[in-house]
Amino acid sequence: MAQTTPNHTQTVSGWAAHDPSGKITPYTFKRRENGINDVTIDILYCGMCHTDIHHVKNDWGITMYPVVPGHEITGLITKVGSNVTKFKVGDRVGVGCLAASCLDCEFCKDEQENYCDQIQFTYNGIFWDGSITYGGYSKMLVADHRYVVHIPENLPMDATAPLLCAGITVFCPLKDNNMLESPGKKMGVIGLGGLGHVAVKFGKAFGHHVTVISTSPSKEKEAKERLGADDFIVSTNVKQMQAGKRSLDFILDTVSAKHSLGPYLELLKVKGTLVIVGAPDKPMDLPSFPLIFGRKGSMTGSMKETQEMIDVCGKYNITCDIETVMPDEINDALDRLARRTMSRYRNRPQN
Amino acid sequence: MAQTTPNHTQTVSGWAAHDPSGKITPYTFKRRENGINDVTIDILYCGMCHTDIHHVKNDWGITMYPVVPGHEITGLITKVGSNVTKFKVGDRVGVGCLAASCLDCEFCKDEQENYCDQIQFTYNGIFWDGSITYGGYSKMLVADHRYVVHIPENLPMDATAPLLCAGITVFCPLKDNNMLESPGKKMGVIGLGGLGHVAVKFGKAFGHHVTVISTSPSKEKEAKERLGADDFIVSTNVKQMQAGKRSLDFILDTVSAKHSLGPYLELLKVKGTLVIVGAPDKPMDLPSFPLIFGRKGSMTGSMKETQEMIDVCGKYNITCDIETVMPDEINDALDRLARRTMSRYRNRPQN
Repeated sequence: MAQTTPNHTQTVSGWAAHDPSGKITPYTFKRRENGINDVTIDILYCGMCHTDIHHVKNDWGITMYPVVPGHEITGLITKVGSNVTKFKVGDRVGVGCLAASCLDCEFCKDEQENYCDQIQFTYNGIFWDGSITYGGYSKMLVADHRYVVHIPENLPMDATAPLLCAGITVFCPLKDNNMLESPGKKMGVIGLGGLGHVAVKFGKAFGHHVTVISTSPSKEKEAKERLGADDFIVSTNVKQMQAGKRSLDFILDTVSAKHSLGPYLELLKVKGTLVIVGAPDKPMDLPSFPLIFGRKGSMTGSMKETQEMIDVCGKYNITCDIETVMPDEINDALDRLARRTMSRYRNRPQN
Repeated sequence: MAQTTPNHTQTVSGWAAHDPSGKITPYTFKRRENGINDVTIDILYCGMCHTDIHHVKNDWGITMYPVVPGHEITGLITKVGSNVTKFKVGDRVGVGCLAASCLDCEFCKDEQENYCDQIQFTYNGIFWDGSITYGGYSKMLVADHRYVVHIPENLPMDATAPLLCAGITVFCPLKDNNMLESPGKKMGVIGLGGLGHVAVKFGKAFGHHVTVISTSPSKEKEAKERLGADDFIVSTNVKQMQAGKRSLDFILDTVSAKHSLGPYLELLKVKGTLVIVGAPDKPMDLPSFPLIFGRKGSMTGSMKETQEMIDVCGKYNITCDIETVMPDEINDALDRLARRTMSRYRNRPQN
């Protein structure tokens, strides 16, 4: 079972929420001694993420109080365990969302430990020793070295901290969708907040034409002048949305409020990709038509594909299971089709 | 403008709906003479598709009455235009959803005319000559040869007809997702109707392990014994759905009623694919969590990817735009973050 007061010995001061009121207060707690696989980090900065608010207020019903938020941590290493070779005292490092994983499953073995079933987070998680994890709203952190990264010398520690969550969240879908090494794509970013502004920076750094889509016309100046976005669409402006139809290869949706995906899917080129990285509490509306007509689902097929399909059917002897109805039975058949009391039909022309 | 009585000369008998009552009645109408690019087809069979019902009842508000439904047509060629080289009189042929497209856009030129903006359908469309198209619930069809396919000799004309819509609709996503030439995948089919049963047949023909997911326990026998499905999950059975979690590489969702995608997304392996081919009238519910945790959206990143991301940020000098707050300002900052009145933040530990 998780313990709020395990056999931990190091006293740390930090800030914690003790109830769902939304307030945090100074909190002194214990961290484990630096183990053989651990590094101890003097925390310099910690980003504030929307997830912190959800945990502080117990929006998802999973908060174990007291909770010390914070998973966008930068700092300097002050201790190194005997098994640790890739870090030394004084190193500039970062810690993100992950505190532990099973180290044994297919994902852990394949360096995709973020998909491990037993993943534990930097705060409100349960570490291997049974203790509840406390995050970066504190002065010091003990972290297993496998969940710590080096920070390049040229990056400032303060503005780098949010990259540990916001940065990686937008980086992975860009990488997974071949947006790192193929400049010149038309890229859209929905929402210009913590995630969105980093996505714009990545998009421009990787050589893409970046369009920001936002509900706030007031963000256009910021998007274009400060972040370098090429275009700006106000999502509530029907004319602008219409003009942007089928214009984008790739869209990153960073909006964390409930919304319909329909209008944004219309902005995608045929076979374009929209990736969702915001996490609305409530399900989003996903209308089928833009998916189907834009081949995000499937809109029948071309004539070439239809011939290929029917030839494949010939090869494998595939046909449909049917019931034959005569023309004067069509109305009855339509009724039964609407009531789903038959599986497949054809009619024969009257003769 | 569309004409219901253009300068067409050939009298054809068929069946039409004249109003949204849902009933169709015998209807005699005209078709064009066989042009130089046309073939005339003696219709043998025509499948009945749910889309027919939607058009008959004007569910989508786009029906031009009288409407002669039917876009799953098989028949024999009786006339061939002078420009037509790939068909001859007596050929066994099929006509699906498409009657015309612009022939000039990027999609038409790339043999993807199904994504042409000017696409016209086999019925309730407007042909190049301005006439309204009438479908396969009739004895004879004049079709441009570019929208006609050959039917292999070994396939029966009756049970092949529905392949022209249902078949191609499930074939394309299988092809697009590399399911034709790579046997041994775990494939799921949601819904066992007109689309679903053909999807199961394709899945088995292509060498996959096929799981049918249905609300109807009564369909298990049919799915397994007649169609050859390997597994069957009742979607309302929490235990079965739980047992199937993260088990499928690819899911084809053929359900045309409104539904939540959440439970089905849970059945996908990490980075698995779900393709929607049903066309619910109302938007589906798309919860974000299964997307994010199963990398259908993006769930933070692995430690390797996090290091790569931060190194890329070093290379391009990318950091976040931040406002620094001191620890005793955290509560105020959390408030403003919740109200979205700041774009990005970090806090500094007390000292």
